[in-house]
Amino acid sequence: MFNNLKTKFNQYFDRLTPFQVIVLFYASAVIVSTILVSLPFLHKEGVDLSFIDALFTAVSAVSVTGLTVVSTMDTFNTAGYFVLMFILQFGGIGVMTLGTFIWLMLGKKIGLRRRQLIKTDQNRSTFAGMVKLIKQILLIILLIELVGAIILSIYFTQYFPTTGEAIVQGMFASVSATTNAGFDITGVSLVIFENDYFVQFINMLLLTLGAIGFPVLIEIKDYLTHKQKNVIHFSLFAKLTSVTFGVLVVVGTVLIYLLDRNHFFADKSWHEAFFFSLFQSVTTRNGGLATMDVAEFSVPTLLVICILMFIGASPSSVGGGIRTTTFAISLLSVISYARGKSHVRVFRREIDPDDIFRSFIVINTAIAITGIAVILLNYFEPQFSLMQILFEACSAFGTTGLSMGITPDLHTAGKIIIITLMFIGRIGIFSFLFIIRGKGIKDKYHYPKEPMIIG
Amino acid sequence: MFNNLKTKFNQYFDRLTPFQVIVLFYASAVIVSTILVSLPFLHKEGVDLSFIDALFTAVSAVSVTGLTVVSTMDTFNTAGYFVLMFILQFGGIGVMTLGTFIWLMLGKKIGLRRRQLIKTDQNRSTFAGMVKLIKQILLIILLIELVGAIILSIYFTQYFPTTGEAIVQGMFASVSATTNAGFDITGVSLVIFENDYFVQFINMLLLTLGAIGFPVLIEIKDYLTHKQKNVIHFSLFAKLTSVTFGVLVVVGTVLIYLLDRNHFFADKSWHEAFFFSLFQSVTTRNGGLATMDVAEFSVPTLLVICILMFIGASPSSVGGGIRTTTFAISLLSVISYARGKSHVRVFRREIDPDDIFRSFIVINTAIAITGIAVILLNYFEPQFSLMQILFEACSAFGTTGLSMGITPDLHTAGKIIIITLMFIGRIGIFSFLFIIRGKGIKDKYHYPKEPMIIG
Ligand SMILES: [K+]
Ligand SMILES: [K+]
Repeated sequence: MFNNLKTKFNQYFDRLTPFQVIVLFYASAVIVSTILVSLPFLHKEGVDLSFIDALFTAVSAVSVTGLTVVSTMDTFNTAGYFVLMFILQFGGIGVMTLGTFIWLMLGKKIGLRRRQLIKTDQNRSTFAGMVKLIKQILLIILLIELVGAIILSIYFTQYFPTTGEAIVQGMFASVSATTNAGFDITGVSLVIFENDYFVQFINMLLLTLGAIGFPVLIEIKDYLTHKQKNVIHFSLFAKLTSVTFGVLVVVGTVLIYLLDRNHFFADKSWHEAFFFSLFQSVTTRNGGLATMDVAEFSVPTLLVICILMFIGASPSSVGGGIRTTTFAISLLSVISYARGKSHVRVFRREIDPDDIFRSFIVINTAIAITGIAVILLNYFEPQFSLMQILFEACSAFGTTGLSMGITPDLHTAGKIIIITLMFIGRIGIFSFLFIIRGKGIKDKYHYPKEPMIIG
Repeated sequence: MFNNLKTKFNQYFDRLTPFQVIVLFYASAVIVSTILVSLPFLHKEGVDLSFIDALFTAVSAVSVTGLTVVSTMDTFNTAGYFVLMFILQFGGIGVMTLGTFIWLMLGKKIGLRRRQLIKTDQNRSTFAGMVKLIKQILLIILLIELVGAIILSIYFTQYFPTTGEAIVQGMFASVSATTNAGFDITGVSLVIFENDYFVQFINMLLLTLGAIGFPVLIEIKDYLTHKQKNVIHFSLFAKLTSVTFGVLVVVGTVLIYLLDRNHFFADKSWHEAFFFSLFQSVTTRNGGLATMDVAEFSVPTLLVICILMFIGASPSSVGGGIRTTTFAISLLSVISYARGKSHVRVFRREIDPDDIFRSFIVINTAIAITGIAVILLNYFEPQFSLMQILFEACSAFGTTGLSMGITPDLHTAGKIIIITLMFIGRIGIFSFLFIIRGKGIKDKYHYPKEPMIIG
């Protein structure tokens, strides 16, 4: 009887596509996290967390977004902070990857199906060395976090009254930055460090290492540890995503400064203006930490930040959004097309037409989803301006976590919409689209083609 | 010496692509129109039209957008109205098509090159019967306008003090509706007819006939005039654009009603609500006439109208925007992809992958252009809300002409941005992209392909 049920479950499980399994795993992680953050003994005294707020916090943590309906500092006690760090870790490195690692630790063999799942989750194109890959990812991330935590904890002793508090703050800050979670237990993000360029620099470094993408980190590690540097070949992916990442940071910094130079930056010194612009640009690449109240920016700057958040981080990173490669390939395609080229070339390589097609699918589906969310948010939350709502929606879809401050005042309908955006942003557009796709549907017949008038 | 110059000019002209020639023609039409609308004897007494306002009016007329920085009624006299009607006619039917018709009338032969230009302007896929096509287009449009003018002129005698005024108003209304120009000489668009469902019905009919696309009109004409109805085969293009057109009107009507049923429609009867919703939905398909002040709508409704305006009319019609087919093909592609189909099918035909690619190019370039325009408008016109600016930008790019009322209060910078959007919206994204493209660039070598991680 029980075996029969188990077999049936396995049959059902096997009928699912890898994308559907990933969605199920993320959904399970959300359920477990919701229960965890609801546990009263993880809360500060007198805190009463409603179900929708617990769910919101759980999705925000699993998707490493960092939008919060309740103040993390005021809601959770130190034990709660550690549980939250654990959830961020789990969400950041990828539920599937970590799940597989635990599987490994328990001594189970990784079957082909399971490898395929990880491949989908991390977007890897080859099966080879999957187990090695997971170990490397974990090792690299934990190492980065450890170094970050040590540096910040020591440095924070000048900011916080006790060494214990400095260590908790340092650890949390390091994990939150590296996983690009954007959560804070200072109560005001990094605004207290608005003049401390050292803390900002360390945070930007950790944010970037988390958001640049695991494959890039591994290739850099290979390059650094290999004796003959000249034999190492960086992949097209690593080059394209890193260059896009860098260009977005630089363009973002320049635009933020230029568009607000007569407003927010009017009374700032050059180095203040530089660090505010740079940090807010880097943080849109997925961190969501902020050294200022972004609501102080003017509308054009906020719109640029919206676009940067919407683009998001590298694929196979801790971040969300449409991803840097999607943006780069779409942009390159339009430029190539306008120049009359039949192929899209970059770094002496040609982009596969299939990848171009998939980029456009991702970008347009993402725009549609975010657009519908913005309309619904405006309908259910008419008390907020279009700018506030657009900003919140882009931040949620990009799993960035920056906010103009409206999150805690959302109604339940608004919270559900933001929760949905964070979830889709994290699992990615493909997983979202493929929730409905069955296995192995093939076209068995053809219709004639007929030319069409476009545009 | 002069011959030498002429040869050089011809050589230069021959080096241009059809798209570049079309842009040049439209630009010339704008220059001529600017001069025309600046002529003092076409103005009412005491009117002083600045250069930027004359340019704005000319571009708005040539692109049949209908956004106005000055009141048409208060600026132009009756002679001015007729000149404006002529420009609308010229812009609506397509500068190139009409130019070729004049060429024909002058007894010149149409060379291959010139046929190719019309082909590009009207987006026709075959060269066959180009001259016949132009004659048909002109005949159909003029016939529709004539019938519309007669009906409206007779009917308007109850609205206007003299028969002469009724005729001028009726003619102008018919031309403005059929060419989807959206200009009015009532001073308040169609708001005076807010309870006159007959006038609204005639206007919606004229708007639809103008925006449904010339190829569709010709196929319908062929169907109606052919004796054996069953041998007539409607093209995939005609079916797809008509169905999309209809679906957009119905979905628009329903959404406008639903989103504003507790606001604008709260105190309206069912037939008022129905006609307000329906008319405002039809008018986004490119008319730009309005039976109400659209600024009275709530933000979600305004956002839906923005999207509808951005999509715009059928290709090869009097309208702008990304066009219905572009929207339909992109949407069908995403749905097919999500369902795991390798082909996009509609009406028992397959969509050419090239057309899918071109749809995505158009849609993404359009979003980029409108997005940049919105950011710049917010920068130069900070006195307006994001909603007002987004609405104005979508209206200009879609050459729709609806406005929340900010047009007359724009600074010169804002006017230039809106002028640019109207121009690009009318010439279309392809012509815009191809301004920079040279002739016959071919890729002579190949780089190896390398797989990429998307989304
Ligand atoms: K984040
Ligand atoms: K119009």
